Amino acid sequence: MIYEIAQLTIKEGEEAAFEAGARKAVPLFQRAKGCHGMRVERSIETPSAYTLIVTWETVEDHMVHFRNSADFQEWRGLVGGTFAAPPQVHHTSVAFVGF
Amino acid sequence: MIYEIAQLTIKEGEEAAFEAGARKAVPLFQRAKGCHGMRVERSIETPSAYTLIVTWETVEDHMVHFRNSADFQEWRGLVGGTFAAPPQVHHTSVAFVGF
Repeated sequence: MIYEIAQLTIKEGEEAAFEAGARKAVPLFQRAKGCHGMRVERSIETPSAYTLIVTWETVEDHMVHFRNSADFQEWRGLVGGTFAAPPQVHHTSVAFVGF
Repeated sequence: MIYEIAQLTIKEGEEAAFEAGARKAVPLFQRAKGCHGMRVERSIETPSAYTLIVTWETVEDHMVHFRNSADFQEWRGLVGGTFAAPPQVHHTSVAFVGF
């Protein structure tokens, strides 16, 4: 299992619209191949900065299967208008869990 | 509950030393006031880039109580020599969990 970590900078005043759009998009991730979880965190220091964290079986499930799907277009349709900048995306795996 | 998100860039070739130091540091976090979890993720695209994720009750538990403790100095003693750059730290709270 790997994590998609997407840093999202939202236009000032569009934070509620972004959150509503992301909530609406939950079923898109739920039905995506290899997708096992999705949550959104918000920066305390910079409230317009969000992090989308999606759990995928493989990087390909995200970058190939989801990115080339109609559901990706629907996701971007729901939230893309609130982005102040292009998302910064990388993937991580767990090195270790301390506790 | 909030998350400390620390982006750590490790010197090339020091990745194993960083991971060993961070594992040794687990008890420091376990006994820290208000600390409820600690894990380390590693970037798939940039293997020298790690993210330390620590769960705290409050930002103050991290920034005031832990940062001013002897255990913080011990933490930095264990891993600081492997850092290629100063850590970039911010804090998040969960906006929502999709699933």
